[in-house]
Amino acid sequence: MPTMINRLTRGLVLSLMLGLSAASHAKETHTLRLAQTWGPNSPILGETVEHMADMAEKMSDGRLRIRIDAANKHKAPFGIFDMVRNGQYDMGHTASYYYKGSIPNAMFFTTVPFGMIAPEQYAWFYHGGGMELMQQVYEPFGLLSFPGGNTGNQMGGWFREEINGVEDLDGLKMRTPGFAGEVMAELGVAVTNIPPGELYTALERGTIDAVEWVGPALDFNMGFHQIANYYYSGWQEPGAEVQFLINQNAWDKLPADLQEILRVAMRTAAYDMYIQSTHASGVAWSRMKDDYPDVTHRTFPADVIEALRAATEKRLKEVAEGDPLAQQIIASQRRYLEQVRQWTNISDKSYLDSVAGE
Amino acid sequence: MPTMINRLTRGLVLSLMLGLSAASHAKETHTLRLAQTWGPNSPILGETVEHMADMAEKMSDGRLRIRIDAANKHKAPFGIFDMVRNGQYDMGHTASYYYKGSIPNAMFFTTVPFGMIAPEQYAWFYHGGGMELMQQVYEPFGLLSFPGGNTGNQMGGWFREEINGVEDLDGLKMRTPGFAGEVMAELGVAVTNIPPGELYTALERGTIDAVEWVGPALDFNMGFHQIANYYYSGWQEPGAEVQFLINQNAWDKLPADLQEILRVAMRTAAYDMYIQSTHASGVAWSRMKDDYPDVTHRTFPADVIEALRAATEKRLKEVAEGDPLAQQIIASQRRYLEQVRQWTNISDKSYLDSVAGE
Repeated sequence: MPTMINRLTRGLVLSLMLGLSAASHAKETHTLRLAQTWGPNSPILGETVEHMADMAEKMSDGRLRIRIDAANKHKAPFGIFDMVRNGQYDMGHTASYYYKGSIPNAMFFTTVPFGMIAPEQYAWFYHGGGMELMQQVYEPFGLLSFPGGNTGNQMGGWFREEINGVEDLDGLKMRTPGFAGEVMAELGVAVTNIPPGELYTALERGTIDAVEWVGPALDFNMGFHQIANYYYSGWQEPGAEVQFLINQNAWDKLPADLQEILRVAMRTAAYDMYIQSTHASGVAWSRMKDDYPDVTHRTFPADVIEALRAATEKRLKEVAEGDPLAQQIIASQRRYLEQVRQWTNISDKSYLDSVAGE
Repeated sequence: MPTMINRLTRGLVLSLMLGLSAASHAKETHTLRLAQTWGPNSPILGETVEHMADMAEKMSDGRLRIRIDAANKHKAPFGIFDMVRNGQYDMGHTASYYYKGSIPNAMFFTTVPFGMIAPEQYAWFYHGGGMELMQQVYEPFGLLSFPGGNTGNQMGGWFREEINGVEDLDGLKMRTPGFAGEVMAELGVAVTNIPPGELYTALERGTIDAVEWVGPALDFNMGFHQIANYYYSGWQEPGAEVQFLINQNAWDKLPADLQEILRVAMRTAAYDMYIQSTHASGVAWSRMKDDYPDVTHRTFPADVIEALRAATEKRLKEVAEGDPLAQQIIASQRRYLEQVRQWTNISDKSYLDSVAGE
């Protein structure tokens, strides 16, 4: 009798261990700490991160949690690359062109002047070798990088006076950061770097003549449309994609199902941000025009576009000099753009042209 | 001593039951049967379904399986709506405008002539009330409907002769199905319905003068570019979205985490199809022109576009007559399009225009 009980007990202990092990495996929670460039409650950009975390948590039944720290918490909005690289955070949400100091080739994965629009660029990422090139750039830093949302085609900026030719740019005081600023400087623009909080006053008082921000959705709250009438179409960021960065060690610790959940949540959140930006820009542009009837849309004249294009080519050549990987990325984007743009032109562009005149 | 063993055994049995129950809940597998309109190994459309099923299975660690039946299996490519509605299948992948006989208002959720392009339409679905209206249409049939992938802007078709004005359409024999066919018929086009397998020969022998299919990606294998030189931009399906349909009972049986996994897998697969179509169309259009240098792109002249627009308005009015929900959907799409198109025009369209001339 005692032997039977012992056998029974042993069997139960064994089953129990198997049962509990399966259950505890299924219930093991992984928490990833994410630092974002954006402040708390940041529209569109911050919402995209929350949306991603929410999908991941629901899909994993609570097993994958993303704890988000906004810029007010970590105090390093442009330090995301370093903080994820050194493991201070597991993940980041930022724009890779902010890090052209530490990792110059990262900038190509946000957007390039005269480059691809959002759907073309996603096609390059997922079918034209873009993801592989991006990984080649980030791998030496122990990082994985994924598309993190598109702002759509960014506007060329708010101008207080019309730009009728390339001569009007000479000496123009403008806030336009990064690579686009360097290109503008080639055309004689006095590029200034003024903190976001002071831009409205600077434009109002004439400290600057023009300002480039994002597009209607995010420009609306900046209020530039209240003090500058001319809203120019862009050339500099035709499809600006922000990025998720992940520390490779943190990624490797996740089981395969949670890796896939995280990968798909990021991919969906990125597309969703493009669509949310499309929506929000439509709403905001309509409100701007309703509230300020003097606000009007302009496109840069052909000679300005030509000069900007030439200056872009010059700067790109300088940036890529002596860097075979940079040259490879530029060549890959250029080849891809040439092909896909012909399709865009006979489909969406032709269609939009044919109905625009009505 | 025996009492201790008994207590121990009772405790073990209890823990075992809890452990096993947690483990078996975590491991419970749900299999959904999906019927697709498309044949086996169908490029892009069929790949989208497989991609969705693959993501769902990986994200759920095998707990959610989608068993896909192609048209050769269920023999009812245009019976998906009925088969999912009556529970013969749990899910379907199809285009809702195939069912305008049984559920006329479903057609608005695929595409509408002179309607929105893909990103505009996704914005309408997810931010402009489109999903809610779609659900209103499908709910009485016990179905849920989700976007299932976009072909991008469809081309107007392959023509053997140039169309120089609206008079050239009178008596033209053309394959163009559905609502677009009805509109074309208003302009005097002799709309014919020829099975896909016979279209090439019909066009070659002059049984028809023109054929509308999809776009370069799917037209390529049909070979029309070998026998017709003029490829016209479209007006009839500016952003054709296919659909996932799900039987409400099958959906309700899934636990919340698997519902979210399925929802996100469908959403991502839909966006991914739009991007894959963009890529594949770029590649195919480039090959067509390389292999057949006489192939050339055309846009319909303004008077043709105007006549098509007027005929579309007339038919839409007829379709919506006496149907408040149809009128509501048309009004919602029209309002949304008016707003979002202004954004598209000052962003992507202006940008594409400004760089096209170079």
